[in-house]
Amino acid sequence: MRFNSETSSDGVREQLFALDEIPGALWTPVGVTGTRPLILMGHGGGQHKKAPGVAVRARRFVAECGFAVVAVDVPGHGDRPKDEEYDRIATENRARVEAGEEPAPLIADFQALVARRTVPEWRAVLDAVQRLEHVGAGPVGYWGVSLGCGLGVPFVAAEPRVRAAVLGLGGVLASAEAAARITVPVEFLLQWDDERVPRAQGLALFDLLASTEKTLHANPGKHAEIPSFELDSTLRFFARHLG
Amino acid sequence: MRFNSETSSDGVREQLFALDEIPGALWTPVGVTGTRPLILMGHGGGQHKKAPGVAVRARRFVAECGFAVVAVDVPGHGDRPKDEEYDRIATENRARVEAGEEPAPLIADFQALVARRTVPEWRAVLDAVQRLEHVGAGPVGYWGVSLGCGLGVPFVAAEPRVRAAVLGLGGVLASAEAAARITVPVEFLLQWDDERVPRAQGLALFDLLASTEKTLHANPGKHAEIPSFELDSTLRFFARHLG
Repeated sequence: MRFNSETSSDGVREQLFALDEIPGALWTPVGVTGTRPLILMGHGGGQHKKAPGVAVRARRFVAECGFAVVAVDVPGHGDRPKDEEYDRIATENRARVEAGEEPAPLIADFQALVARRTVPEWRAVLDAVQRLEHVGAGPVGYWGVSLGCGLGVPFVAAEPRVRAAVLGLGGVLASAEAAARITVPVEFLLQWDDERVPRAQGLALFDLLASTEKTLHANPGKHAEIPSFELDSTLRFFARHLG
Repeated sequence: MRFNSETSSDGVREQLFALDEIPGALWTPVGVTGTRPLILMGHGGGQHKKAPGVAVRARRFVAECGFAVVAVDVPGHGDRPKDEEYDRIATENRARVEAGEEPAPLIADFQALVARRTVPEWRAVLDAVQRLEHVGAGPVGYWGVSLGCGLGVPFVAAEPRVRAAVLGLGGVLASAEAAARITVPVEFLLQWDDERVPRAQGLALFDLLASTEKTLHANPGKHAEIPSFELDSTLRFFARHLG
């Protein structure tokens, strides 16, 4: 694990790092040592480890809860090299959707393919980050919607360190088998008028989660229009389960 | 409006009253005067104005938010006389359900019948309570699930003083027309394994609400098993919209 840069603002320290070929960002409270809860955040499709939706949430988790937050670029995203196989599939998928195919099954297949790489990568990231003296081996949470849900469901199912997860904007096609193995508390965000994930598929994914405690939060609006008050709810959810 | 008794505990003043033939309970902070937000709470079927689910929530709204809360007995409930027509319908409905009929349409018809009485009654209660110097004419919220949703949807649709509502455990059959006239923010509670309200009917009622801001909170469990953390969310919802 190599640290490449470090900045601080508003009590939040941001370190950029690389773990092998994986570029990442780590946010922690300024000037602390010792074990604390750690949130791994998965970014959306076409985004990256420091996309605004990731960074804004990460800074609030740190500033308001004292957590550590880590995010890494998904293969083919951010500072990672282009992936020829992914590019080819994405191009094909766009053509198939323009020709009238339903996007949801195509997205699902693509996410399942990428998850086979990201699950072991993210487990290695947890290993490395939890060895740092300002993070430590505390309870872990996962936050990810859209692509971050498609990749997050198999990750949360596979990784026993994860004690609570916020997921959403994802459908059942990508991850039915893994969803049925998730037993930790989940807050699941669904956009009622999602133009990318059919409502019934989002509801079916929530239904499949084996968690005793799971709450669906559904709001009007399109895929990218999660209302800002849901971030307040997310903070309380993680504080309740990890704090 | 006649006040019959008054007690105080833990900073909460409880006054029992009657408005014409309607028995009610009013909870306010001890020792205050002046205008404050007012929550009207509708109780569930077979319950009454001081049922535990009502009183526990009322005391938290008062103690934690400084609100006033009022609840009254629905006709045929609590301290009100038996209503022969309602009793006859309830007895008939039980027999029809035992004979294999779906309960949801029967419950819906019954709630629509009762709502024709409770909507004007509750509006009169607001008029009277808002004239008290320790309540005043502040913003109004409504909380009611199950029967309190069946009666609450037409009330919230009819009463412009209501600025935000928590509803739930209700289906679309009782109140589709009124639901489509609701435009205030709504937090809607749905139990995923509700044995009394089919899931699709609860989702359809949420769908019909015309509110720009509405959030569905769905949790696993049966009709009466709303998890306790939803009360925390309800408090924050009302504080955000009425506080």
